[in-house]
Amino acid sequence: VAERESQVVLGIDPDPGALWPGAAPAEGADRLTPAQAAASAVLEHCRRLIDAAGPACVAIKPQLARFELLGAPGREALGEVVEHARAQELLVIADGKRGDIDVTADAYARSLFGGVETPFGEVAGLGADMATVNPLMGRDAVAPFLRAARAGDGGVLLLVRTSNPGAADVEDLPLAEGGTVWERVARLVDELGAESVGPAGIADVGAVVGATVPGHMDRARELMPSAPFLLPGIGAQGGRVEELQAAFAPGRAGGLVSASRSIAGAHVAGGGSPEQAARAEAERLRSDAWELSER
Amino acid sequence: VAERESQVVLGIDPDPGALWPGAAPAEGADRLTPAQAAASAVLEHCRRLIDAAGPACVAIKPQLARFELLGAPGREALGEVVEHARAQELLVIADGKRGDIDVTADAYARSLFGGVETPFGEVAGLGADMATVNPLMGRDAVAPFLRAARAGDGGVLLLVRTSNPGAADVEDLPLAEGGTVWERVARLVDELGAESVGPAGIADVGAVVGATVPGHMDRARELMPSAPFLLPGIGAQGGRVEELQAAFAPGRAGGLVSASRSIAGAHVAGGGSPEQAARAEAERLRSDAWELSER
Repeated sequence: VAERESQVVLGIDPDPGALWPGAAPAEGADRLTPAQAAASAVLEHCRRLIDAAGPACVAIKPQLARFELLGAPGREALGEVVEHARAQELLVIADGKRGDIDVTADAYARSLFGGVETPFGEVAGLGADMATVNPLMGRDAVAPFLRAARAGDGGVLLLVRTSNPGAADVEDLPLAEGGTVWERVARLVDELGAESVGPAGIADVGAVVGATVPGHMDRARELMPSAPFLLPGIGAQGGRVEELQAAFAPGRAGGLVSASRSIAGAHVAGGGSPEQAARAEAERLRSDAWELSER
Repeated sequence: VAERESQVVLGIDPDPGALWPGAAPAEGADRLTPAQAAASAVLEHCRRLIDAAGPACVAIKPQLARFELLGAPGREALGEVVEHARAQELLVIADGKRGDIDVTADAYARSLFGGVETPFGEVAGLGADMATVNPLMGRDAVAPFLRAARAGDGGVLLLVRTSNPGAADVEDLPLAEGGTVWERVARLVDELGAESVGPAGIADVGAVVGATVPGHMDRARELMPSAPFLLPGIGAQGGRVEELQAAFAPGRAGGLVSASRSIAGAHVAGGGSPEQAARAEAERLRSDAWELSER
């Protein structure tokens, strides 16, 4: 964050039906299956998006669902998107919201981070720096992700209080002990990350905290003083960057401001080329957040 | 269930380092990447496992993590495993425990069920009949999965009370209103499935209920009278089939008895060929559950 002077996370969330004009399959499209053609066009779109908006960002956050939808070619494209971002010194946050236990969680974690040794040779992982993790199944569902992330100096981001209306159904339920489910998960985040807090004051266990409910941000920071917050819900989902000040309390890297559609779709609302509009929107967000976190 | 006289779900959870003897990459292995070679051997293992144990089962439950670990070749192998199972009239429960919202959940759901129409042609989905879904993010995280499942006469299985120790961290938390988080999720399962209950008395919204805590089974059935229960934790995780009677209250299809390692690894404990041991263990489980559900 300090190096790039940016807290902006570029959400990579490509809809094959709404790619940038000109994003098309590479040559030989007539010999491709629909999934291969779509994946090829998606890759082209993502590369252009990263080239355009990346310089104003600190990380990309590929939405794994969009790539899974395209099957094996989608997984290939995802790998190349990650590679493209890393070549430009962007961090990678794999947004898959996985959550499982034991050997299963270990397989997910190795798949997202460093890969696995097999009798057939070493199978590389995606090489992400962080991954979003669903904590419903508890501590033992998080541990394998954290272990794999730490092996590469990365971290995890637990879903704490998401930005969707359904957050009321489970996350917001009041507990008998006081507080809510999400506040209890927040305590877990704080506990799991405690030993990792470095000189910058930031832990390697962070939280996804929806930016759409401003009242929550202060409370979240109180419960997780050192956790990096991934803040989705900026732009398309209605969150406002000005409401995020508490996120930056432990330092500038305390708040990672995530935006997808508001950047990739900036040209739709504001005109201009997709590249120029995306760059301008990412830069606007970067500068707003940077200034806000200075206070 | 009635047709096959089985409630057994064959968990497909292949560890590339512990495949059945003889499971090897198809010809041309020297030209394969490690991921391709591992995926090819995994596919061979899975086909043999399905051929051996499948006749005693009603469904397979591929653990998506194990296939994701092998990247794009893993996704290809997963597709072929599903196809192999379907050719033998086995149902397919995609065990990915996905949970996300909005367009993201929709992408996951289409990926697992029926696929998607794109400007590049129709991209097929995995063709699952059911999928496990993580309900932490609430109702709007479940809806897209249910919509996609219903389009193919399938259903979803929500994580309600899992069989791992970490279930105590969130799922078991007592709520201010009384009951626990998992009991509240159970009510959501019942609500979402209510309109779907057919002549067999079974809804298309089910629940993953760990068989390791017997006391929970009666309570789960009370809260979800029509939900099909997916019951993991049989065998390797220590659950016992005799403790499951409440699961079968709405009818024989009310309890789907899932086992992975206890079937695929039966030869390790009991000797014999992997095929014979797997078939015998699946048949033992089938007959125990069938008899139990008759009472």
